[in-house]
Amino acid sequence: MKLSTGPYKGARDFYPKDKRIQKYMFAVMRKVVESYGYEEYDAPILEPIELYLSKSSAEIVTQQTYTFEDRGGRKVTIRPEMTPTVSRMVAARRQELSYPLRWYSIPNVWRYERPQHGRLREHWQLNVDIFGVQNIAAEVEVLQIANGILKAFGATEDMYEIRINSRVALGDAIKLAVPLTSVVEVIRIVDMFEKMSRDEFIAAISKHLKYPDKLLNYLHSAIPTDEISKIISACSLLGIKVEYVPSIARGFDYYTDIVFEVFDRHKDNNRSMFGGGRYDNLIGQFNVEPLPTVGFGMGDVTLQYFLELHNLLPQLDSATDAVVILASSETLAAQKVIKRLRANGLNLSVDITERKMDKQIKAADKSGIRFVIIIGDRELSDGRYVLKDLSTGKSNMLTIEEITSMFKKNKEAKN
Amino acid sequence: MKLSTGPYKGARDFYPKDKRIQKYMFAVMRKVVESYGYEEYDAPILEPIELYLSKSSAEIVTQQTYTFEDRGGRKVTIRPEMTPTVSRMVAARRQELSYPLRWYSIPNVWRYERPQHGRLREHWQLNVDIFGVQNIAAEVEVLQIANGILKAFGATEDMYEIRINSRVALGDAIKLAVPLTSVVEVIRIVDMFEKMSRDEFIAAISKHLKYPDKLLNYLHSAIPTDEISKIISACSLLGIKVEYVPSIARGFDYYTDIVFEVFDRHKDNNRSMFGGGRYDNLIGQFNVEPLPTVGFGMGDVTLQYFLELHNLLPQLDSATDAVVILASSETLAAQKVIKRLRANGLNLSVDITERKMDKQIKAADKSGIRFVIIIGDRELSDGRYVLKDLSTGKSNMLTIEEITSMFKKNKEAKN
Repeated sequence: MKLSTGPYKGARDFYPKDKRIQKYMFAVMRKVVESYGYEEYDAPILEPIELYLSKSSAEIVTQQTYTFEDRGGRKVTIRPEMTPTVSRMVAARRQELSYPLRWYSIPNVWRYERPQHGRLREHWQLNVDIFGVQNIAAEVEVLQIANGILKAFGATEDMYEIRINSRVALGDAIKLAVPLTSVVEVIRIVDMFEKMSRDEFIAAISKHLKYPDKLLNYLHSAIPTDEISKIISACSLLGIKVEYVPSIARGFDYYTDIVFEVFDRHKDNNRSMFGGGRYDNLIGQFNVEPLPTVGFGMGDVTLQYFLELHNLLPQLDSATDAVVILASSETLAAQKVIKRLRANGLNLSVDITERKMDKQIKAADKSGIRFVIIIGDRELSDGRYVLKDLSTGKSNMLTIEEITSMFKKNKEAKN
Repeated sequence: MKLSTGPYKGARDFYPKDKRIQKYMFAVMRKVVESYGYEEYDAPILEPIELYLSKSSAEIVTQQTYTFEDRGGRKVTIRPEMTPTVSRMVAARRQELSYPLRWYSIPNVWRYERPQHGRLREHWQLNVDIFGVQNIAAEVEVLQIANGILKAFGATEDMYEIRINSRVALGDAIKLAVPLTSVVEVIRIVDMFEKMSRDEFIAAISKHLKYPDKLLNYLHSAIPTDEISKIISACSLLGIKVEYVPSIARGFDYYTDIVFEVFDRHKDNNRSMFGGGRYDNLIGQFNVEPLPTVGFGMGDVTLQYFLELHNLLPQLDSATDAVVILASSETLAAQKVIKRLRANGLNLSVDITERKMDKQIKAADKSGIRFVIIIGDRELSDGRYVLKDLSTGKSNMLTIEEITSMFKKNKEAKN
């Protein structure tokens, strides 16, 4: 049988070039969220299925999770999202923790769905949550962070739009239109309002409402609640533009009021990239005192697509500074030079294949690493080594100190 | 039903304090392996079960993996180790990649076994592999890295011992003792030689060998092969002590010759911490040209236990530099100060709860963050802010620049 060399369907292999992009994205995320005092946590990728049954949307748990029985007969689920897990962890130490509690994580999460552009079965998702703040300063901070991350990637305001809504206000409007089914079901349709034509929407909503026109009018002409107005103006003072869009609802049932989404404004990708909101009731489900919470999740697949589309990904070089070619039989003396360069902070890949020098240089060229350092007998006696820039073909004879300071300068110029 | 707040059995929640330790360990690992020119890769945690059936030990696949059928009827396994995955990825790009290829990854891997001290169901494992080198320079480099990581954590040579053996030589010795079962089965028993009493070992081995004494003599008096002697002396020149132990075999069947293990020498934990070896036949199983490979895996659970036991874990502070307490109604002016401090590289957690100041300071104290910055009306008009060190109780009035340089100096002093 021939073994496949591809990754599992809908998931990705990260070759070093791909991993560099992911590491860059995660580093930017970490830098911004940590500047707001958020601390990183983590948890196992497996959770008991019960954790999701009461919290996530039913569709996700029953149709889209990876759920199975472990060898001990426990029903377990590969986490489809992080919010139930973080709620569990906070509930476990409800009394000991200090509030406001600011936590973040960048877990991988799994959903069984048909892979399509921008939606894969496995993706990584930055989760940012603030626990213990009842007032809108929590929403404002979380919006500031979401905006701050996009800005840190070099995005400008014309590239994206932040949209906000109140689930409570939307729920009230739905009640006035007299729902024939559950409000949750209606909310799910309303959430697609922006993606549907007027006729499609009316057709979809009419089955669920006694007075669909009432809701339609609301979605066209609603004015923001006091709270939303306050959030929008607080954000505005901080230089962040937030739009009120009365149909925004988000997919998860656990949001209790304010929800927001960040939309890509690129004409080829006019859609929601990520979002979040307030969920004040999750921690309480673990039989501990409830805790007001606001958070958001930002997925790596949609983010990377956004960065590529708007040309925001920088050139990311290998972490390896140079390939070292040994052209001397004085192995030990050469190793001492390499050791000193490494101690000076250089990342060096030594060609230890014992093949001919021209083959070694060819391999270095193929590896994508820009510099080659040649250590031969003459070099060892002179204390000066050949540093060859493969991008220009130029060579220089330099001391260990000169080589070190050149790489240091190059790195500083990049940061 | 009461939902449990604990993690899945045999796996760990990482609260920020735990995550800090993990991040520290991973950062040290990355620094050392990247200094040797290794690049990071990654892959999905799910793989088709076939990937393991031909490679890992049969016991692991059939009894210890998390294997299930996905919603599309595919048999999938949560990876119990990374070597089959990295072999798959290299095989997929066998022609395009440049050799020697140096790759590393720090994946989480899962095994269904009874959790015990130092062995959990989920752990993270640094995987370091060099592909395309047939000569012993590969073994020497990998041993150098394993040793370099322990040194980077501050370990000294009296704390651990590196042991090496040749599976080929061991296999030959077993053949001379005439195996009654498979050589692989005998190797598995030999691997436990150091843990068993002489009588236990003889009892175990006698069922499998016609001449058990021959093997026993070999294990007591074997002399290293030429290759092993060369590796030991090359390591010795680099200042690394390596011991020849003729019973070392490692658990995986895919090793083709040299294997090594690193033992903890602490009297309370006298056992194998991690290891690796040469596996030249895995890539070829994907119907591509074979590729000589040497690698090792280092697990986070055993490593952390080693660091704790030998008192090598440094004090790891929160990434948050200070809690900011707003004592002014000039929110916008205060926000500008905070923004400048963040732009200067400070990580600041702002108390946005609107509770009384003494409660805010109490919460800051409970959070474990050492400094508090108070921004009140007088501070805003003076341009000097209260910086309070909660560890000493002392306060100072400082400008933004003074606060910034104090934190910079503190951080530099730590590195």
